[in-house]
Amino acid sequence: MSVVVVGSVAYDGVETPHGKIERMLGGACTYIALASSYFAKTKIVGVVGNDFATEDEQFLAAHGIDLEGLEHVPGKTFYWAGVYSADMNDRTTLRTDLNVFADFAPKLPASYRDSPYLILGNIQPALQRSVRAQMNGLRLAGGDTMNYWIRDYREELIETIREWDFLLINDAEARMLSGEYNLKRAAAKILSMGPHTLVIKRGEYGAILFHRHWHFIVPGYLLEEVFDPTGAGDCFAGGFIGYLAEQGFDLKNGHIDPKELSRAVIFGSVLGSFCCEKFGVERFRSLTRAQIDERFQEFRTFTEF
Amino acid sequence: MSVVVVGSVAYDGVETPHGKIERMLGGACTYIALASSYFAKTKIVGVVGNDFATEDEQFLAAHGIDLEGLEHVPGKTFYWAGVYSADMNDRTTLRTDLNVFADFAPKLPASYRDSPYLILGNIQPALQRSVRAQMNGLRLAGGDTMNYWIRDYREELIETIREWDFLLINDAEARMLSGEYNLKRAAAKILSMGPHTLVIKRGEYGAILFHRHWHFIVPGYLLEEVFDPTGAGDCFAGGFIGYLAEQGFDLKNGHIDPKELSRAVIFGSVLGSFCCEKFGVERFRSLTRAQIDERFQEFRTFTEF
Repeated sequence: MSVVVVGSVAYDGVETPHGKIERMLGGACTYIALASSYFAKTKIVGVVGNDFATEDEQFLAAHGIDLEGLEHVPGKTFYWAGVYSADMNDRTTLRTDLNVFADFAPKLPASYRDSPYLILGNIQPALQRSVRAQMNGLRLAGGDTMNYWIRDYREELIETIREWDFLLINDAEARMLSGEYNLKRAAAKILSMGPHTLVIKRGEYGAILFHRHWHFIVPGYLLEEVFDPTGAGDCFAGGFIGYLAEQGFDLKNGHIDPKELSRAVIFGSVLGSFCCEKFGVERFRSLTRAQIDERFQEFRTFTEF
Repeated sequence: MSVVVVGSVAYDGVETPHGKIERMLGGACTYIALASSYFAKTKIVGVVGNDFATEDEQFLAAHGIDLEGLEHVPGKTFYWAGVYSADMNDRTTLRTDLNVFADFAPKLPASYRDSPYLILGNIQPALQRSVRAQMNGLRLAGGDTMNYWIRDYREELIETIREWDFLLINDAEARMLSGEYNLKRAAAKILSMGPHTLVIKRGEYGAILFHRHWHFIVPGYLLEEVFDPTGAGDCFAGGFIGYLAEQGFDLKNGHIDPKELSRAVIFGSVLGSFCCEKFGVERFRSLTRAQIDERFQEFRTFTEF
């Protein structure tokens, strides 16, 4: 079953200890959609300028991604540039040119509206809300946010996530949103805001999924070389929603299967780990579903006791 | 089968966001032995001054710990004081009075020498080596170290761990010892120094066990309240060696069972997590084996998928 992904489609300039790329395809929507495309039909909603390269569009199309909702407007595509610290745990933004993204007002094509799965990349909460309102018969909807919206758009954000099934954020964001340092307490507070499922991403340390009465923790995959962590969190989100869409996950017609949600966290982790192996979206040029399934099995091997 | 534990027996002054204790029983040997005592007969080697309280000795004895190797000498017991940061991920040492520990020269009672399991707390590498040399028929020997020995006693330390089966250190120490930031590469280098098994402790993020051709990762247990992390790493070590001793782990008469080593890491994590629930060794006044086994099962529940 199909997944609708909404968010930024961008060009990124990235510098890590392994090298520097001036301009490469990026954006949350791009990463989420690429990861999700290995599991389910994926439809994107985004906006690009007239500098958006045909080859980049072809690359997305080659992954079976539906581009009907990718709006082309005069101007330049969103551009972001940043540099990572030596250990790659911190990054500094060097440049953020919103360009055509500044006026992004997501419009869903009619063919998207009945998709059962929706994932909202990190954009203004009111926009996320407007997208959800355009859809019918959703089985599962949720998304990401960031410190900026938590701090300066708090009420709007809380209104928005109240309608979500899941929220996918990192540990610092969870602490900021809840006002609790301890993650277990933070999770309890956030779950009382609406979503039945909270996934807290912890970078190299993995992720925790909190549901009302249980939680699941996965450690991060050990890579020998992290080339570029850009997009890893979004790829996590894409693997998570993609797998659930593939399984036809449905909350309303039955109980939640904790193991199914847990496996979605593993597939999220798998996709996030592959993302780091090359710069930007490069790893997705060669990545196969067989490699994804193999790494999923690896997670079993190194976590079972 | 019995475990010999060597290391500091001390009094600690600790301040965390939850409170301040001027003086409480502590020391690596104490924590390791308490944790190990739930699994196997545990014999300690350490030194205390004439200020060492009878009630503290009784507390250890009540856990079945053999105190024959606890030397009493004139003077004061080792005293350490420190204060934790608000998030408890960092601590600052306020005071280190070595006192009688300054001249510690571990002497093994004859009744300890045939114990099959030896764990060496963080002391000077040459002392650790001298203890190992006093023992016969060891099945498994290893221990801990710290940044000071890695930096200033490097050659001595490398000579020492060459004879060990396992090394149990934290991530910063593994990076320092190997000169590699990446933990997978760091582990490969350290395993080439002698030990067949390396356990890297990651504090709240859990631990990784590296063996030559495989590794096992466990996430940290989520506590709602961390009262005092003092001793958690040592309790991890005690749970690890204690469980292996209980199982009669033997490398020489058979192959290594990865699942048995992995379960030892889980028991280490379980004991480390209990340690944080109260100040100092307080949790060990009420902790039962049934609670330990229950938490072990909890680890299965929140890691299985």
